[in-house]
Amino acid sequence: MSFNTFGRAFRFTTWGESHGPALGATVDGVPPGVALDEAWIQQFLDRRRPGTSKHTTQRREADQVRILSGVFEGRTTGTPVQLMIENTDQRSKDYGEIAQAFRPGHADITYHLKYGHRDYRGGGRSSARETAARVAAGGVAQAVLRDLLPDLRITGYMVRMGALHLDRARFDANAIGENPFFLPDATAVQEWSDYLDAIRKDQNSVGAAIEVLVEGCPPGLGAPIYAKLDTDLAAAMMSINAVKGVEIGEGMGAAALTGTDNADEIRMGNDGPLYLSNHAGGILGGISTGQPIVVRFSVKPTSSITTPRRTIDRHGQQIDLITKGRHDPCVGIRAVPVAEAMAACVILDHLLMDRAQTGGQRGRIGGAPEN
Amino acid sequence: MSFNTFGRAFRFTTWGESHGPALGATVDGVPPGVALDEAWIQQFLDRRRPGTSKHTTQRREADQVRILSGVFEGRTTGTPVQLMIENTDQRSKDYGEIAQAFRPGHADITYHLKYGHRDYRGGGRSSARETAARVAAGGVAQAVLRDLLPDLRITGYMVRMGALHLDRARFDANAIGENPFFLPDATAVQEWSDYLDAIRKDQNSVGAAIEVLVEGCPPGLGAPIYAKLDTDLAAAMMSINAVKGVEIGEGMGAAALTGTDNADEIRMGNDGPLYLSNHAGGILGGISTGQPIVVRFSVKPTSSITTPRRTIDRHGQQIDLITKGRHDPCVGIRAVPVAEAMAACVILDHLLMDRAQTGGQRGRIGGAPEN
Amino acid sequence: MSFNTFGRAFRFTTWGESHGPALGATVDGVPPGVALDEAWIQQFLDRRRPGTSKHTTQRREADQVRILSGVFEGRTTGTPVQLMIENTDQRSKDYGEIAQAFRPGHADITYHLKYGHRDYRGGGRSSARETAARVAAGGVAQAVLRDLLPDLRITGYMVRMGALHLDRARFDANAIGENPFFLPDATAVQEWSDYLDAIRKDQNSVGAAIEVLVEGCPPGLGAPIYAKLDTDLAAAMMSINAVKGVEIGEGMGAAALTGTDNADEIRMGNDGPLYLSNHAGGILGGISTGQPIVVRFSVKPTSSITTPRRTIDRHGQQIDLITKGRHDPCVGIRAVPVAEAMAACVILDHLLMDRAQTGGQRGRIGGAPEN
Amino acid sequence: MSFNTFGRAFRFTTWGESHGPALGATVDGVPPGVALDEAWIQQFLDRRRPGTSKHTTQRREADQVRILSGVFEGRTTGTPVQLMIENTDQRSKDYGEIAQAFRPGHADITYHLKYGHRDYRGGGRSSARETAARVAAGGVAQAVLRDLLPDLRITGYMVRMGALHLDRARFDANAIGENPFFLPDATAVQEWSDYLDAIRKDQNSVGAAIEVLVEGCPPGLGAPIYAKLDTDLAAAMMSINAVKGVEIGEGMGAAALTGTDNADEIRMGNDGPLYLSNHAGGILGGISTGQPIVVRFSVKPTSSITTPRRTIDRHGQQIDLITKGRHDPCVGIRAVPVAEAMAACVILDHLLMDRAQTGGQRGRIGGAPEN
Repeated sequence: MSFNTFGRAFRFTTWGESHGPALGATVDGVPPGVALDEAWIQQFLDRRRPGTSKHTTQRREADQVRILSGVFEGRTTGTPVQLMIENTDQRSKDYGEIAQAFRPGHADITYHLKYGHRDYRGGGRSSARETAARVAAGGVAQAVLRDLLPDLRITGYMVRMGALHLDRARFDANAIGENPFFLPDATAVQEWSDYLDAIRKDQNSVGAAIEVLVEGCPPGLGAPIYAKLDTDLAAAMMSINAVKGVEIGEGMGAAALTGTDNADEIRMGNDGPLYLSNHAGGILGGISTGQPIVVRFSVKPTSSITTPRRTIDRHGQQIDLITKGRHDPCVGIRAVPVAEAMAACVILDHLLMDRAQTGGQRGRIGGAPEN
Repeated sequence: MSFNTFGRAFRFTTWGESHGPALGATVDGVPPGVALDEAWIQQFLDRRRPGTSKHTTQRREADQVRILSGVFEGRTTGTPVQLMIENTDQRSKDYGEIAQAFRPGHADITYHLKYGHRDYRGGGRSSARETAARVAAGGVAQAVLRDLLPDLRITGYMVRMGALHLDRARFDANAIGENPFFLPDATAVQEWSDYLDAIRKDQNSVGAAIEVLVEGCPPGLGAPIYAKLDTDLAAAMMSINAVKGVEIGEGMGAAALTGTDNADEIRMGNDGPLYLSNHAGGILGGISTGQPIVVRFSVKPTSSITTPRRTIDRHGQQIDLITKGRHDPCVGIRAVPVAEAMAACVILDHLLMDRAQTGGQRGRIGGAPEN
Repeated sequence: MSFNTFGRAFRFTTWGESHGPALGATVDGVPPGVALDEAWIQQFLDRRRPGTSKHTTQRREADQVRILSGVFEGRTTGTPVQLMIENTDQRSKDYGEIAQAFRPGHADITYHLKYGHRDYRGGGRSSARETAARVAAGGVAQAVLRDLLPDLRITGYMVRMGALHLDRARFDANAIGENPFFLPDATAVQEWSDYLDAIRKDQNSVGAAIEVLVEGCPPGLGAPIYAKLDTDLAAAMMSINAVKGVEIGEGMGAAALTGTDNADEIRMGNDGPLYLSNHAGGILGGISTGQPIVVRFSVKPTSSITTPRRTIDRHGQQIDLITKGRHDPCVGIRAVPVAEAMAACVILDHLLMDRAQTGGQRGRIGGAPEN
Repeated sequence: MSFNTFGRAFRFTTWGESHGPALGATVDGVPPGVALDEAWIQQFLDRRRPGTSKHTTQRREADQVRILSGVFEGRTTGTPVQLMIENTDQRSKDYGEIAQAFRPGHADITYHLKYGHRDYRGGGRSSARETAARVAAGGVAQAVLRDLLPDLRITGYMVRMGALHLDRARFDANAIGENPFFLPDATAVQEWSDYLDAIRKDQNSVGAAIEVLVEGCPPGLGAPIYAKLDTDLAAAMMSINAVKGVEIGEGMGAAALTGTDNADEIRMGNDGPLYLSNHAGGILGGISTGQPIVVRFSVKPTSSITTPRRTIDRHGQQIDLITKGRHDPCVGIRAVPVAEAMAACVILDHLLMDRAQTGGQRGRIGGAPEN
């Protein structure tokens, strides 16, 4: 019944609407003594911030985070960390029509049916603006992980946008931060940019697929049966606005494989098991293997487009609707830092849960170190 | 931290190992006064039962369920329903080697690393045998849904097995129960049977994709942001053994679409909104629209195959392993009733949660009935 | 693991420290469509506000609540309600010494031992100032209850302060709001006032006992076995700062009774069962009977006193400590509105839980209305 | 909404009715590798078993526990431990009348009102027989605590029965196990025995008060604000059948004290803080201090007595009821091992939660060891 809370041992609750005075996250279960300040969290928010390129919404939000509790003299105290982001550029006047009409593909109609009364301004609670609060919470998780798992690296990037696919042979992690698409291939940026420009000029929008790679995750995280690591990652990604599919490792493609193809054979390395492949995406039986964790998800095209669509309003009148406003032509782009934040929260949550149950002890294989 | 519990308002906890004396589910939050007996639950278990065709494991389990609590004079009392299935055909001798060796693609190695000490017999807790307990719990959910949502229909079926795809033009729901593949196309059964025979004779196994269709679900179920209906369905399916991907509606394919393609336009029907398409798979903003809910997931090929695979044992020795025993050549087949059970539990859970928050009240559109 | 969250279906998470920039509550599970504004909540906060009489701390806090989310055009939307109270009169300079020293009877030493790093200013998170956030959350609960249970009345009052006891023969509910002690006996106010003055002038403090009476609660609320109504009320009260005991009905005195004395005999009234006594305090088997619910709890004397006490500091040095600052001589007084708020949250939580499981249906007795 | 589940990191769910085929507990979150067998758990059940003296019910239950899962080769595996106790001496015929009539002081009427349909045999789910399942779960907790906190000692005993009080000057822990009253004073056993005989012969019953002492609990356990150690202990005890009051340390008596009396002054000992008194009962701000934890609770007199009481039946008829059957004249006696079990579960739950958040690190005082 915790509708707006995510996580078990490391938990955050997000609150706030797109055009309310503020939004934020209440983060609970934070280990004490961890260095944390607003600048640290801000770096994550800045990656998600709207208005940074022509490919994202032109809404201008500073997205300045304030820490209202849980941090004293620059370190966490173990009490709830309250993160608040004030909304500054709300322009409610843009959204007059949608007070009455239901945008196709939007939560307008389902919120209306469920709650009867809703904040229609900018989508209210169902707006992707909520993801700013997740990114802030993810910043807290990243601060704790920096201390507890210093070798962990979480990297999100686009692998598909409409007709365009990442050429994995050209994968270059260094390129990701250097272009507005979080694309790990500098040579393809111009093509992606032209493609999206054309989509936008055509009054249209387009879907995307994002991959998150978690490297340096130790084996043993994941709590079968119903808090498996992949289960929680799937829930985390599916909870992001507009996500329609989630994959671990081979994902939906696993349906096409045979057992001989799919087996990740194992050899013995100096430091423990050495896997010859990673079809599993780093998770077996819901528990991390120590290999890189690979999560992929799709984001549907932005539903708010300026091409007219047939719909109804709350009086049951049939209308044609053009959704004006300042919308991303590909909402998938800004889902990248959101997905990284969710992955960080899931990994930390499982690390703490594992500490609770096993105390971090690990089973021994051969002469390999026990932990 | 409830590792083995699923659900919020309608909750079940599964317990038991593949070769222990019994396994089962503790089901809590059951509404009182609902007619329920063992025969009702047994019908669901019988659909999943092993040994019913040459295409599933030859392990012979009666899978007879006993209700130990929560039901009195044929009706639920609102107290926990304990469901127990005794294991009868365990043959532990079959599993001697895997006490030491880690089967590639199995949870053997991750359970060993996490827990140090594990029940290796038949995979212990990580065995797909655990899913019998889910099916039993799903039977309780189905009994309640029969009363509360009499028009609800939950139908699972195979849509892919390795190289073979369901021809959707030939979709026939009546065929599903008439063949060992839960295939909604009687004309393709022979081909699927021959294909799987060949896989099995080749000492191999194969992956699959399953779809679950939920018809008759009212609008308004789903609790944003972190208990969205699609989030919970994704978690439910991903928690099933060997599942590697989950899709809602267009799923991963949404990445390829444009906004004009993807919009589900709306007209006004006699009884409320009428959608002209269902790319969304029946869920918008995490809340059901009233359209059919479409969930799809992939199951990787059975990892236990009789073709030798390279692996290690707990002493760190490198070995070649042939996994003998009685394994399904396509574990995806028996995932069908499991997925239906999980879907039933999710729908009921959300129905009860919605009763808690909104009292089942619905927002009104035009002159449509308020519900 | 939700350390700072209370409730199941109606949940609130409090955050904030005594001398941080703000504190508040994130309230989730709120039914939609309920009229709510800041003025409504403020009336509850004003009853608890410090500095209103010479008998409470002279710290001057406006305790102005702001609603940051979850309310639109004066009604709840079903999304999280964020309540924020800014701290205005913090005077951190008062608290220099306790940065190092552990006040006897305070959480200073246990927070230090558990968390290592703590916000020592004014007790940080362990300050009774946290209870303002509860009162605000309780205001949300009261708004919902006003709609769902219009006949419900929750009344808290002092029944004991040190050597003084309420004379129950003089009980007058109308007097409660007319004196600084929440005392239901106007004739005793002067005596209580003189007594507490003497305590304060003596550099001392004193304990108290508070009773909360819940009238108009329907039968059937409470979820056995581990979410009994009395269990949750006990947890609610014990979670309040300085509370050391909780009683339902006869309370600790039940140990002295015999079965014939204690039985609440039942007759049949026009509208259902009529109980001839209420030793049970309105709860049987964890479920409300429909009789008034009676909860009582003790509050220990304020630990911060200006009489020197022996203690140690964080360097292990033995010192004598006088706790200066602005402390209530009897913290029990201001616990009254806090306890009412907690009772309101528990009742609403159970009302929503009951709606989830039973749909609000009630068993029938004779010709009494079924509900 | 987890009605029948207790705990967070260490969780158990009880199930079963008084006269159903079996009852038990599903225990989740158990650390792996802990030695556990049925004989270990049985010792705790044997202390609670009915029919062991003339002072408890003459129902003869073997209360033999079976472990159905979660233990392999004598050690826990980290998967759910299912504990089942079959009911053998049910004699449903004794309970014919209460199928229709509501026993005063019993949950019969509230279960009827809430659930409509109930198992009336022997009180069904509301029977104190449920506590056998708690004791079994407590046995699992005790096995884990034996490994993790070898110095911990949890001791329950009677301090009051009706008019009789324990003389604390004669407290002798060794006496507790040597008499049917769990009385820590061998010299008073005859008097207590005669007193209870008289009560029973008088067709009556009597209340009791029990104290649980937890020695050797380290400082730092407890998770403010809403999972305080004392909050959880209060909930644990209040959830036991017939309990009406719970106290920590001074308990309700704290209302009578002044701040100078109540302060537990602190000196520096060789191994850390040394408290000069323990009014707090070992808990400050919801966190353990390292002193003995003192919990006390009252149990009302058995409601089932053979003296006729006025009541109604489900048809609304007014009747006089004599409750026959085999009932304890003082149910408080058998609450002693139940309370010990609950205390063990709470302590372990908090130990695991603390491992999750702080990793078991402790703040340092002076030169005292850090952990």
